[in-house]
Parts: sequence; C-alpha cells; structure tokens
Amino acid sequence: MFGSCLENVRNTTPLVHNITNYVTVNDVANVLLACGASPIMSDEPEDVEDIVSICKGLNINIGTLNKRTIEAMFVAGKRASALGHPLLLDPVGAGASALRTSTALSLLNTLRFSIIRGNISEIKTLALGSGTTKGVDADAADTVTEENLDVMVAFAKDFAKKNHAVTAITGAIDLVADSETCYVIRNGRPEMSKITGTGCQLSAIMTAYAVANPKNLLEASAAAVCLMGLAGELAFDRLLEGEGNSTYRNRIIDAVCHLDAAALEKGARYEIR
Amino acid sequence: MFGSCLENVRNTTPLVHNITNYVTVNDVANVLLACGASPIMSDEPEDVEDIVSICKGLNINIGTLNKRTIEAMFVAGKRASALGHPLLLDPVGAGASALRTSTALSLLNTLRFSIIRGNISEIKTLALGSGTTKGVDADAADTVTEENLDVMVAFAKDFAKKNHAVTAITGAIDLVADSETCYVIRNGRPEMSKITGTGCQLSAIMTAYAVANPKNLLEASAAAVCLMGLAGELAFDRLLEGEGNSTYRNRIIDAVCHLDAAALEKGARYEIR
Amino acid sequence: MFGSCLENVRNTTPLVHNITNYVTVNDVANVLLACGASPIMSDEPEDVEDIVSICKGLNINIGTLNKRTIEAMFVAGKRASALGHPLLLDPVGAGASALRTSTALSLLNTLRFSIIRGNISEIKTLALGSGTTKGVDADAADTVTEENLDVMVAFAKDFAKKNHAVTAITGAIDLVADSETCYVIRNGRPEMSKITGTGCQLSAIMTAYAVANPKNLLEASAAAVCLMGLAGELAFDRLLEGEGNSTYRNRIIDAVCHLDAAALEKGARYEIR
Repeated sequence: MFGSCLENVRNTTPLVHNITNYVTVNDVANVLLACGASPIMSDEPEDVEDIVSICKGLNINIGTLNKRTIEAMFVAGKRASALGHPLLLDPVGAGASALRTSTALSLLNTLRFSIIRGNISEIKTLALGSGTTKGVDADAADTVTEENLDVMVAFAKDFAKKNHAVTAITGAIDLVADSETCYVIRNGRPEMSKITGTGCQLSAIMTAYAVANPKNLLEASAAAVCLMGLAGELAFDRLLEGEGNSTYRNRIIDAVCHLDAAALEKGARYEIR
Repeated sequence: MFGSCLENVRNTTPLVHNITNYVTVNDVANVLLACGASPIMSDEPEDVEDIVSICKGLNINIGTLNKRTIEAMFVAGKRASALGHPLLLDPVGAGASALRTSTALSLLNTLRFSIIRGNISEIKTLALGSGTTKGVDADAADTVTEENLDVMVAFAKDFAKKNHAVTAITGAIDLVADSETCYVIRNGRPEMSKITGTGCQLSAIMTAYAVANPKNLLEASAAAVCLMGLAGELAFDRLLEGEGNSTYRNRIIDAVCHLDAAALEKGARYEIR
Repeated sequence: MFGSCLENVRNTTPLVHNITNYVTVNDVANVLLACGASPIMSDEPEDVEDIVSICKGLNINIGTLNKRTIEAMFVAGKRASALGHPLLLDPVGAGASALRTSTALSLLNTLRFSIIRGNISEIKTLALGSGTTKGVDADAADTVTEENLDVMVAFAKDFAKKNHAVTAITGAIDLVADSETCYVIRNGRPEMSKITGTGCQLSAIMTAYAVANPKNLLEASAAAVCLMGLAGELAFDRLLEGEGNSTYRNRIIDAVCHLDAAALEKGARYEIR
C-alpha cells in the first residue's frame, strides 16, 4: 500500500505550489524533486491564482509569514479549493505569537484543508483556539509518549474529525489520523530535530503524496511520514565520523531520492489504532 | 577562447548585483564565489540604485517576484543601463502566470538586456508576447532536439536579433545565439533537472562572464553554459553510491570551484552554426 | 573559560530570534542548532514583538533589508531592549548604500546593542557616520594587519566604548573588544571568504553565546569568534580532493556541531591586548 503511494508520486510527478518560509524553502524544493514531485514557489497575491491553477496541490506553511504572504495564502487557498486540489496547512509557530495563531485559525476556518501537519504544540493551539478547551483537547499532553498514547490518539482523531482533515502530529512518535483510524509511526531519528526544516520538507512531501493518491489520503499521508522518518534513519546510518547536522540534511534528501517502494514497505514501522 | 573567458573572471572578481528568488539565492551566491566572482543581493527599491552602482553587472531573476521586487528590478535595471553594465534577464515562469509574463515583457521592453537566458517555454512566451505569432516564432517547438535543431537555431538567432541580446535557451541541448551565430552545446547531465536552481546559478555565472568579457559577450555566454554543463558532468562522475540530488547540488558548485581554463577548453562540447 | 562559554550554550539551548537576510538564513538556522542553540526567524512587524518575547536574544542582520523588515528591526529591538535581552547588530553592507548606512546608524542610535559585529569597512562606516571623522576613527585602515595592529586595537576599543557594546571586527585577524580589553584572534582560514554567510553565521552564534553567558559578554564573544574560526580550520583539514566551497560550507557547520569545550580551549589562538 505505502509502496504504491510512493510509486504513484514517481509516476505522475505532481506539481506542488508552495507558499512557504524563506528559511527552508530550498530544502523543500529539493526534497520535492527527490521524492518525484515538482515544486513551484510563489507568494505574491497577484501571482498565486495563476500559479495554483497550473499546479495540482497547495502547501501552505506560515513559518515566516508577513502581511503580503498571508494575503497570498488566502487567495491561493480559495482558488485551490475551488479547483478541488489537496490543501495542506503547516501552522509553524502557532501558539508562539498572536499573528501566527490567528492566521492559522483563520486559514482553518476559511479553507477546507485536506491535511494539517504540525507538532503537538501547534496542533493543540489550533484545537484550543477553535473554541473548546474541554474534554479531549485539554487532556492533550505536550509530547506524545508510549504512556499517553491512547489519549493522544483520541485527540488526533477528534481534531481530524472536527476539521474534516487528515491530521499529522509529528514528533518522536508520529500520529497520522482521520476521524476513525490513526497510524502510530515510529520511524525517524532524534537527530533530525537538529536540522532546520525536516517538518517543512515533510509537509511538502505529504502534499505531493496527497495529489498522487487522492482516494487514499490517510494512507498516503502515513506513507509520506514513514518515508521521511525512514530517510532520516538511512541517512543517519550513512553519516561518517565528524559529519554533523549540515551533511545529515543533505543525506536525508539524498535518501528520499533513492527510496523505492520495496524499501519503504520494508522499513515503515507503524501500527494502526 | 573559453579558457580566457574563465580566467578573465578569476582575475577580476566581478561584483554582480542579483535581484533573484529566495528559493535558490544561497546557491547563486555560492556559485558566483565558486566561479571567481563576488555576489551582492538587494531588492529594496530604495537600496538598489546605490548597490547596482558599486557593482559591475546585474542579474534579474523573476522566480519569486512580488510588487516590491518588481519595482526594484526596474529601478536597478535603469541605473545599470545608464552605467553601461551588462544586464541579464532570467524570466523564470514566464508563461505560467499573467504577472510573470507581463513583468518579463515589460522588463524586456523597458531595459536593454545584454543576455536573456531561459528554457524554451519561457523564451517562446517572450517571443510570442512581443507581438508576432508568425514565422520563426510560431515554428518553435517545446524542446530542442536533434531533429528540430535547424528551426530552433533560426528561432534563437531571430529572438536575439529582435531583442539585441545574446539569447541562451537551455535544456538537454543548449543554444547560445546572437543574430548571426549560434553555439549548440551538448554539455550537462539530465540529472541536473532534479536539482532546484541550476538555471538560476547559470544566469548568475553568465552575468559574471559578461562583466569580465565585455567585448566577447557571445563567446563568454557560451563559455559559461559549457562551464555549468561540464560541472554537472564532473560532479556526476564523483557521486558515490547512495548520494542523490542534494549532494549532487553541492558537488556541482564544488566542480565550478575547481574548473580551470584547460579543463573547460578540453571538456566543452559544442558546435557553431 | 572559552570552554565553559561553549558548555553554557549547549546546556541551556538559548532561543535566538533572527531578523536576517534570505541569502544565508538556512545556514544561520543550522549553525545555531549545531552550536547548541535554537533559532526562530520572524520579520513581520506585527509578529516580532511576540516572537522576541519568547526568545532570549535578538540577532539583527541588515543583509537584504527592506522597508518592512527595517520596521520589524526597530519594533523587535525595542522590545528586546525592554526585556533586557542581548542584542547583536550585523551591519551588512553599511557603507555600500545610503539606506544600509542610515539604517545601521539609526539602529545604533535608537537601540542599545550588546554586540556589534562587522568587517572593518562596515565598522569604519559606523564610526565615521556617528559624527567624528578625526582621531582614532580616521586612522583606521581598511584591513587589520600585523603592521597596523596597535592602531586597529585602539580603534576597536574606542568604538566599543562609544557604543557601549562589545565590538567584533572580523577578517584575516579578528578583533573582539570592549572599552578596555581586546582579543586579537588568529583562527580561521582564508578560504572561508569563498563561502557566503560565514559572517552571518558567526553573528548568530555570538548572540547565542551572549544569551548563555550574560556576565561574560566579552569572553563569550571572543569564544564564539574562535569557535567559528576553528571550525573553518577543522573543516578545511577534512576537505577531500575535488571538494570546493559548497562542501566546505557543510563541513564548517558539521565542525561546529562536534566542537566541544576541550577542543575549543586547545584550538583557540588569541592574545589579549
């Protein structure tokens, strides 16, 4: 299943429009090429309607948002929705500033996202911000651990249900859920957190996987998360003595480049709850 | 000839002003340093007149254009023209959006570019947009192949003549033409298309080569195209098992760093038509 | 001493807010992670007050300034000052354009910087621009050499005194001074100038070192300068045949990643004047 998700990307070269931050944008472009997709970046409000129309999916990342790019996110998002394209929201820093929180919530309330991907802190901010501070949301912890897994799986499913979107909460343990099913994924390496942008890269890959697998959004999203984690593992195994986070960054993208269906199927480590 | 073009860059360290996209800007800066030039980036309208005045050439790339940077392109371009500096236009995405097409055409009509470099789709957009949809322009195909080479060479020369600019159409086969002469270049590797920004890097290098070789613009442009393609070949030969597009990107810039006149002369593969 | 400065960073993971240029921002983020700190980037005026408030230090780099980001620098700087956070100014290109010079001077006059880091040309511009063109300032040469070292050390101390800030003038020989004491540092490699952004990276590291060593600002700044230079030396020793400036860039960040207190103490080459 995951293998065919990967092959569908490589066989169709989905063109993904990214409105993303300038910190990690080069890595986002290269990892999209590495996974078999094709990137376009555009964040001028007057440009994005045309660009989104020639693409097949839209990845919105608020990492270095400004007023111009926020406007572009809404313009592009509306057009992408009208075209029926998969939309992904990466709410970078939601909770860290009022502007980020309100922008992420406003995007969430205005557009219909196919996928939302963030860390637990960002997703909790969105969950609380959308009105309810009770029940499952308030029970959500600040990290996903083996001990609180049941609660967090329920939180992920609930968030996915309320937002009608596949929800990916990534961290040491990754959760990828729709309202009914949650993949609990244990790929990846802790050293990935010492590289800027692995989350941004994953969001871009997930958008490409959604485009290429429109009828299997949950599985495709989980496949993308396993792919990125597995790439982190393979790249770590290839690090030589003295190599650090900069070379590790390159080797992860290289690993995405070489991963095929069989390797993904073999290396994916997950359970379904 | 190509060798002396290269040495003229290394001996004079041309300072190149780049108004370029934020996706590949770091690679553009590093490849300019690698080829022996020196980069400055500035895209604020109030800043660019001063910056362009201390530089020797201007590289305009519309890859992630916005209203502010479009204004900066015109301001800087006019000042660079007044100073007699070489100007290069890289019309990234012309044809993909109305804003990109109109911006590229407006730049072309307002400023006098020394060099225009794009892929065939971008150059065709500019050719058709400038008024004539007949004759050579309409015959231009969507890729340059051995089969349509005569037509495409004529198209490149015609575009160069109409725009009074050396024209580089890059792809599997590269064409570098003025109104009378066309270099048909067969350096490079198909894998280069799996890295973001090799075109942007080439445009920056071509600007540096133009600055250092003002009386041999055509030859200097062809030398720069051969250099980039040859760097792609040498870097590919150095790739180890498991290395992918991210490491390939680094190795190409590394190869530009080490290429000398003799290696360029020896490795350049071209014919003149 | 330098070793404990390094360990204080690794033990406290200082969160550094960067308003910086889009050319080298990815390297800045990765080198902060490499040295044990944590980066946030934000340059929208409406966003920066919140972001600066959750951080512990602010790194202002004017490399690709525009009107929006200039406003953000002042807003963030005032809030960081009010919070008592270390502020660093990297006046990239001061002297190269009126906007850069006036922005740097205005920042200097409005905010209280803990550290100012630039090359000799930038620091001279600030010294002359602040009113006096006589005495020590006018005597400052265009490079720091063994021959003019006494004059330049006096210039650095004088600039530090006038601006109430630790002053780092970096180049082949680095000077790090307060009003009374100057570290003369001889780490580093000339090849580092063939990579874009080693200065930007150093400024970010210095901000992290200032956060983690608030009572030893001068020593912490000197430690950061030695660290970066030493990383350049170690990385150069690891370069393989055929590797150039792009791989060198990665290896420097990798070296920062692995440098520990003992290696820094052993490798730091400086005298105190």
